[in-house]
Amino acid sequence: MLMILRTLREPIVQAPMAGGPSTPALAAAVAQAGGLGFLAAGYKSVDGVAQDVAALRERSGAAFGVNLFVPSERPAEPSRIEAYLRELAPEAERYGVALGPPRHDDDEWEAKLDLLEAERVALVSFTFGCPPAVVLTRLRAAGTETWVTITSPDEAAAAVSAGADGLVVQGVEAGGHRGAFADEPGDEGTGLLALLSLVRQGTNVPLVASGGIMTGAAIAAVLCAGASAAQLGTALMRTPEAGTSAPHRAALAAEGRTGLTRAFSGRLARGIVNRFQCEHSATAPPAYPEIHHATSPLRAEARRRGDADGFNLWAGQAFGLGVEEPAAEVVRGLAADARATLRRATQVWT
Amino acid sequence: MLMILRTLREPIVQAPMAGGPSTPALAAAVAQAGGLGFLAAGYKSVDGVAQDVAALRERSGAAFGVNLFVPSERPAEPSRIEAYLRELAPEAERYGVALGPPRHDDDEWEAKLDLLEAERVALVSFTFGCPPAVVLTRLRAAGTETWVTITSPDEAAAAVSAGADGLVVQGVEAGGHRGAFADEPGDEGTGLLALLSLVRQGTNVPLVASGGIMTGAAIAAVLCAGASAAQLGTALMRTPEAGTSAPHRAALAAEGRTGLTRAFSGRLARGIVNRFQCEHSATAPPAYPEIHHATSPLRAEARRRGDADGFNLWAGQAFGLGVEEPAAEVVRGLAADARATLRRATQVWT
Repeated sequence: MLMILRTLREPIVQAPMAGGPSTPALAAAVAQAGGLGFLAAGYKSVDGVAQDVAALRERSGAAFGVNLFVPSERPAEPSRIEAYLRELAPEAERYGVALGPPRHDDDEWEAKLDLLEAERVALVSFTFGCPPAVVLTRLRAAGTETWVTITSPDEAAAAVSAGADGLVVQGVEAGGHRGAFADEPGDEGTGLLALLSLVRQGTNVPLVASGGIMTGAAIAAVLCAGASAAQLGTALMRTPEAGTSAPHRAALAAEGRTGLTRAFSGRLARGIVNRFQCEHSATAPPAYPEIHHATSPLRAEARRRGDADGFNLWAGQAFGLGVEEPAAEVVRGLAADARATLRRATQVWT
Repeated sequence: MLMILRTLREPIVQAPMAGGPSTPALAAAVAQAGGLGFLAAGYKSVDGVAQDVAALRERSGAAFGVNLFVPSERPAEPSRIEAYLRELAPEAERYGVALGPPRHDDDEWEAKLDLLEAERVALVSFTFGCPPAVVLTRLRAAGTETWVTITSPDEAAAAVSAGADGLVVQGVEAGGHRGAFADEPGDEGTGLLALLSLVRQGTNVPLVASGGIMTGAAIAAVLCAGASAAQLGTALMRTPEAGTSAPHRAALAAEGRTGLTRAFSGRLARGIVNRFQCEHSATAPPAYPEIHHATSPLRAEARRRGDADGFNLWAGQAFGLGVEEPAAEVVRGLAADARATLRRATQVWT
């Protein structure tokens, strides 16, 4: 079995940030610094994913991962979608655009799987569910390692039993979408450290810790807690290599707090609280990807206008610790800090 | 300035668990194993606290802490309390008791402060707020170190500026009441690791990490993340020295999940989800200590009957990792595991 984590110089994995921030340049820079680069296939066309894979391979010979969204099985309740679209009508007016069609689709699941199988990428990770064992087997036959994102011990057990080679253990601190298999209304989330403890107890597969990790000390912490690497998303969003929009960068550099919301996409995600999130979080239904498609033109227009109150400002809970530096410097600096932390803690406590 | 943490053999602090679990015997056992024992003054009479202090001093010569609840400044909205009491009428009938008077009190704040000052205890910690600087100064003059429980970077800054000697950094994972200064409706909580990262960045005072810590690996993790010690509550609830009730012990040993609720006390707290919590969490108002007093007879009767569906089953998110062992063994075992974790992680990663 492949074990891509063993080949890394640094125990750092770039988070796949769909919707803009992840770029081939960012993945190449992370790999150059000894971490693992990642591409986000979500929201992209199959051609777009193929272009990203090609562009990254041109920039770097290093192994990398590609993240896929697992499609939800059934469409959401139409009446709840319609009610929410009515609520959003004034938003559409405000931004002078029409809402997008609230369609249910699978984000070209099969075609993207075919592509990644054909491209024989080193690693495919999954979010929003665990694919059937047959999919994981098929990728393994192509020489591809598979990771599944989990947010609870039950999801971890299901993923291991389906044959996942590794787990991305996502704490409630994480920015962007929660990777839970189902978007349950009562899901309050589990803190990363408690979740790592619970999952580590139940399985021997390698764990990648994700959620709110912004410092070398936090990387050292998750390595102690049983992770083989830390996955960094928000910590890389202000790098020049990331495709993060200018108003999003400004919000990441300012004071603020994050909250969980379904307002933008119909699926629970963590972002910096802004006007849109305040006004619509209480009413937005669990209806992904329908709401994602419906708000897409709104969000694009708000982003174009530089209006940070009108689109999703995904960020983890500790985003305030982020810096604006080249990605390779971020990775190297955090890895050095993590090592120094481990040495110091060992000296003091053992 | 005193720094009680420097005198500990093990970086482990017992959590003060008001309402039963904390006993002089538990504090003495934790101290005997090299950790820091704690008494919980909350809910007790002044005489009861004095008796606990005397009983602990008889059992152990070690320094210990006492935790005080900071009273809330203003009573809650009467109409919301009344509505909730009406909702609870069938519960009172079910358990054959009358609801308690929903009174607002300060848990004998001044008299308890006077007692602890006179007793010159080594350490007093505070929950539900930061006392005025003059209170911290007064305790310091009596040779007492002061810690303040915080759940956000803003609370940490306020506590440091009031003169706290240390901070108990409580992540959202923690069992029992959230120690937030105010019980804000929108408080989703911050995961321990992200919170430690944020607070460590802003202050140099010693931090004690609290919330979901059940393993030596998790203790090692919080030491890396900048804490001087880990505070353990749930991990000690199944020890024979704890005053945990039998049905609560049974729930801690069974499958289950935790959730945040105001149903039992009118203040946000984490417990294992049971019938009462399911049925009343959506409607319970922020009204502490009024609701605490109102439900007190109900909870006592349910506990007496062994009905784990009728009272608060406080527990942290990783309660499933707890064991039934003497407290000194738990402390020694976890401390040894923490050391082994640090050594192993340092060997692998540096």
